[in-house]
Amino acid sequence: MGQKKIPESTIPRLVVYLREITALANMNIRTISSAELGERVNLSDVQVRKDLGYFGQFGVSGSGYDTTELKAALEKILGKNKTWNVAVVGVGHLGSALLAYPGFKKHGLNLLIAFDSDTKKIGKSMSGVAIQSTDEMPKAIKDKKISIGVVAVPAERAQEVADKLVSAGIKCILNFAPASLNVPEDIKVKDVDLSRELETLSYFLVNKK
Amino acid sequence: MGQKKIPESTIPRLVVYLREITALANMNIRTISSAELGERVNLSDVQVRKDLGYFGQFGVSGSGYDTTELKAALEKILGKNKTWNVAVVGVGHLGSALLAYPGFKKHGLNLLIAFDSDTKKIGKSMSGVAIQSTDEMPKAIKDKKISIGVVAVPAERAQEVADKLVSAGIKCILNFAPASLNVPEDIKVKDVDLSRELETLSYFLVNKK
Repeated sequence: MGQKKIPESTIPRLVVYLREITALANMNIRTISSAELGERVNLSDVQVRKDLGYFGQFGVSGSGYDTTELKAALEKILGKNKTWNVAVVGVGHLGSALLAYPGFKKHGLNLLIAFDSDTKKIGKSMSGVAIQSTDEMPKAIKDKKISIGVVAVPAERAQEVADKLVSAGIKCILNFAPASLNVPEDIKVKDVDLSRELETLSYFLVNKK
Repeated sequence: MGQKKIPESTIPRLVVYLREITALANMNIRTISSAELGERVNLSDVQVRKDLGYFGQFGVSGSGYDTTELKAALEKILGKNKTWNVAVVGVGHLGSALLAYPGFKKHGLNLLIAFDSDTKKIGKSMSGVAIQSTDEMPKAIKDKKISIGVVAVPAERAQEVADKLVSAGIKCILNFAPASLNVPEDIKVKDVDLSRELETLSYFLVNKK
């Protein structure tokens, strides 16, 4: 597989392609053209070929993509065959909602521990996840081999938490705080931006019949 | 403006184009080609032309899009010049996090009221939003001219809440419950799926140097 540097905005589309290709493979559909795949996910055939082209040659000219082969390749690219340990920092409203969220497990993410600075919460557990003091972060993150840190603290505390996560050895941060985080180049920060969803809502109201 | 039926997955890209075009217009850049715009947001020029083509002819062959004109058109299409009233149903962990979220206001959405069935919460307010009984939903939604309902209840209660919202006259539902909602055709449901964000995380871990 070619390992060129892939633009980040391509990755969510790979997730979409994988869902579609998995559905097709389950229906025993063996091949699909870039145009047909594009039509199913509302992208042009050029876009589909560009996105999948980063990973090598899946398409056979004239017959399209082999669905089984493409599914396996996308799963490998997206790390579907692995699991990762996750810690949530901040057990306020949002953090509590995340601890109760079933989607982590479904996607190979083991939510093993949570951290908070509130002594009323420390030592308790929520949705089956133990809450430890943020002071214990460096040791606990190493001991539990955590690779993903979820930042669910207020904006003004987010950078401090990110710094702690990075020095504890975390490789990837999922950031829910409305703050942009400064981290070393080799650390991946994924900002979760509910605004995008909100911004599309008014479209549907304006364009109603 | 042409008002063809636009595939839903196009809308988030329109939001991205608008952000980029706004930045360009603010820098006094007058025109941009579909290829340049595409490059800035990691989409092919064909995709850009296809997406913007739904709304008519903005591009002038050879000179590209007029940024001021395109900005105004996208703002109109996306309903940026209007505000909408919003109600949140369910003031558990997630609902509480949403009431505290500053993004609604920023995007022209007035979060006016919340509903819950827990008598301990009814009559109180949280983050400045009053919590009423779900029994009062029909009247309160009409009185306050609410057009968007946010479903933040557990999956097993989501359909019942959606039915109530629809019969109260809501036009658009933002659904955080992991359940698919049945609503009449003229009601828009937008499912918020954190899974998509989670699914991209493992990519970054697998493909680290």
